[in-house]
Amino acid sequence: MTEIPATTRQLQSLVTEGGELQLSIATVETPRPAEREVLVRVEAAPVNPSDLGLLLAMADVSRAVAGGSPEEPTVTAPIAEPVMRSLAARVGDAMTVGNEGAGVVVAAGEAPEAQALLGRTVGILGGATYGEYCLASPRFCLPLPEGADPVNGASAFVNPLTALGMVETMNHEGHTGLVHTAAASNLGQMLNRICLADEVPLVNVVRRPEQAALLREQGALHVCDSSQSTFDADLVAALRETRATLAFDAVGGGDLAGRILNAMEAAIVAPDAPYSRYGSDVHKQVYVYGALDRRPIELHRRFGFAWGVGGWLLMPFLARTAPEDLERLRGRVAAELTTTFASHYTDEISLPEALNLQTLQRYARQATGEKFLVRPQR
Amino acid sequence: MTEIPATTRQLQSLVTEGGELQLSIATVETPRPAEREVLVRVEAAPVNPSDLGLLLAMADVSRAVAGGSPEEPTVTAPIAEPVMRSLAARVGDAMTVGNEGAGVVVAAGEAPEAQALLGRTVGILGGATYGEYCLASPRFCLPLPEGADPVNGASAFVNPLTALGMVETMNHEGHTGLVHTAAASNLGQMLNRICLADEVPLVNVVRRPEQAALLREQGALHVCDSSQSTFDADLVAALRETRATLAFDAVGGGDLAGRILNAMEAAIVAPDAPYSRYGSDVHKQVYVYGALDRRPIELHRRFGFAWGVGGWLLMPFLARTAPEDLERLRGRVAAELTTTFASHYTDEISLPEALNLQTLQRYARQATGEKFLVRPQR
Repeated sequence: MTEIPATTRQLQSLVTEGGELQLSIATVETPRPAEREVLVRVEAAPVNPSDLGLLLAMADVSRAVAGGSPEEPTVTAPIAEPVMRSLAARVGDAMTVGNEGAGVVVAAGEAPEAQALLGRTVGILGGATYGEYCLASPRFCLPLPEGADPVNGASAFVNPLTALGMVETMNHEGHTGLVHTAAASNLGQMLNRICLADEVPLVNVVRRPEQAALLREQGALHVCDSSQSTFDADLVAALRETRATLAFDAVGGGDLAGRILNAMEAAIVAPDAPYSRYGSDVHKQVYVYGALDRRPIELHRRFGFAWGVGGWLLMPFLARTAPEDLERLRGRVAAELTTTFASHYTDEISLPEALNLQTLQRYARQATGEKFLVRPQR
Repeated sequence: MTEIPATTRQLQSLVTEGGELQLSIATVETPRPAEREVLVRVEAAPVNPSDLGLLLAMADVSRAVAGGSPEEPTVTAPIAEPVMRSLAARVGDAMTVGNEGAGVVVAAGEAPEAQALLGRTVGILGGATYGEYCLASPRFCLPLPEGADPVNGASAFVNPLTALGMVETMNHEGHTGLVHTAAASNLGQMLNRICLADEVPLVNVVRRPEQAALLREQGALHVCDSSQSTFDADLVAALRETRATLAFDAVGGGDLAGRILNAMEAAIVAPDAPYSRYGSDVHKQVYVYGALDRRPIELHRRFGFAWGVGGWLLMPFLARTAPEDLERLRGRVAAELTTTFASHYTDEISLPEALNLQTLQRYARQATGEKFLVRPQR
């Protein structure tokens, strides 16, 4: 076995009472696994949109300032007063960051399911993967095939299970087609591959022509570009064909969710249907699973009364999914890790590089086509 | 039996292609009941908020113009261009109006359940109760006690079953307390009486001090007035006490639904709870059942990811309610018609008076404390 160092470096995010974000690379005691835990030497961890909320605390990174030394850099950035109110519960707590990653299990608790993973390369769902070593639960470890590159397992949880969770939710709630916003994202491309393979009608909503082109190159059948003046009509036409009545929305601000509901209703109601002041009785649903746009959600109601908008998150979905279904989903991810569920990274960065100002401002933008991978061992 | 006239007068609402609302009193052939129908001589029919959408077609009634004769008055009013788009399906169709009312069954189809009602005074859920005679289904007839005044049965369906439906929905979806907006309405006062009797914690949200006073006089335990600067804090305090996580919102525009969700979240999360960027895992729900405010719904998200906002309507609720439960609810309405479910009317108007400009502008305002009853036989 590899020797385990007594201390380990990890990225920490702290919000101060004075309204400042402080990022640093802390050196802490290497944790020891409890009975049902494993210790993983993290080789690779992606920067997902879902990591940035905790990491950056909605600070104004355009005004970030670098400090510390090249080995132990720090970053500070101001946090606006209204934002601070929603962060009260984390003030003063240095928090570890990184929801998922992959690496080698170097120590394990006594429980058989933990021991079974010793020496294996695993994808993990964690909470501190932006660090050299972190703990994980065997339940949230996905063993990779022998000899697999940890890079291929770094994004084995969040995006694959979120995309599969959308299709599961669709089936469970009786819908037969999907709408997805921010559809050119890594997650969106994955969902497109799943829907093509499973013959699930999918309407991809993007914000720019080049994103539409990217998805069409990947075989997407329905792509609607919200930057076009024909967007609402395009959406209605795609919804007439797909009969999709469930949308997953990563944007979560502005009028997009409401426009989707209105387009769904327009697609459902036949032009010659008798007037109903209450709208159609077909239930139309939008689940908001992100917050790319921090403005309020604005619903312009022309979609009758059979509608819902609500929050959706991976962890509650996993919690309410039956163990056998979860096993089926995990098995599919493992089998299709380098195909359907492949992620592509444009930048690999070390822990200190994650605190480089220009690098940080780039991944904070969450630009489509850019995806960062943290390599904690570098 | 009463003699049934060959023709009957009824209020009709027409939207013209030119963007005009035309209200009139039409004389039409008295309809004959089909096998499972009854013909009711309508004695009284309330003007509910849910009637006004169809009746007034969102026309600008401040610019309404009177016409016709004293016996057969007409009203015309302009409809704004954006509104017209949502009314396309009703253009050119003269529509009957009036969702509920009460009267005497003067003819019945052959089916035993129809025959059984002959001669009875019944409350009905209809669609043409603003008329001298209208058809109804026995399923939507509530026989009143012998000798009962039809006025007492005029509002036996919409408000009572809506209020009871809110409590049923709360129980069915696992909540243990309610929030209600526009709580000083006739419906709101009814809900308050039900919740006091059933010991359901209820937070009443009103818009003016006199409405708060009215509800407190009626024993309401929690009243929050949105015109007060302390509204958000008052709401959080009431929600801490009641643990209500389900709201029924008649307003449906502006930021009220979002403020309720934010207050629910603030009441749920203990001040010393560890920070979660995803918010609490307690599901918070707002059902929008009205549209008193026609602005967009604006959700300022500080309520995490365990939330939902959706439409709620009486008829779909009745459709998904088991027959034995419906029987229980109807039985309660019949038993408590002059107590829990009593409605009070400030104005009684004939069909021609319903088209009097000043009268129309008054009931179009939907002012709290004012409630109109149409008396078609006058």
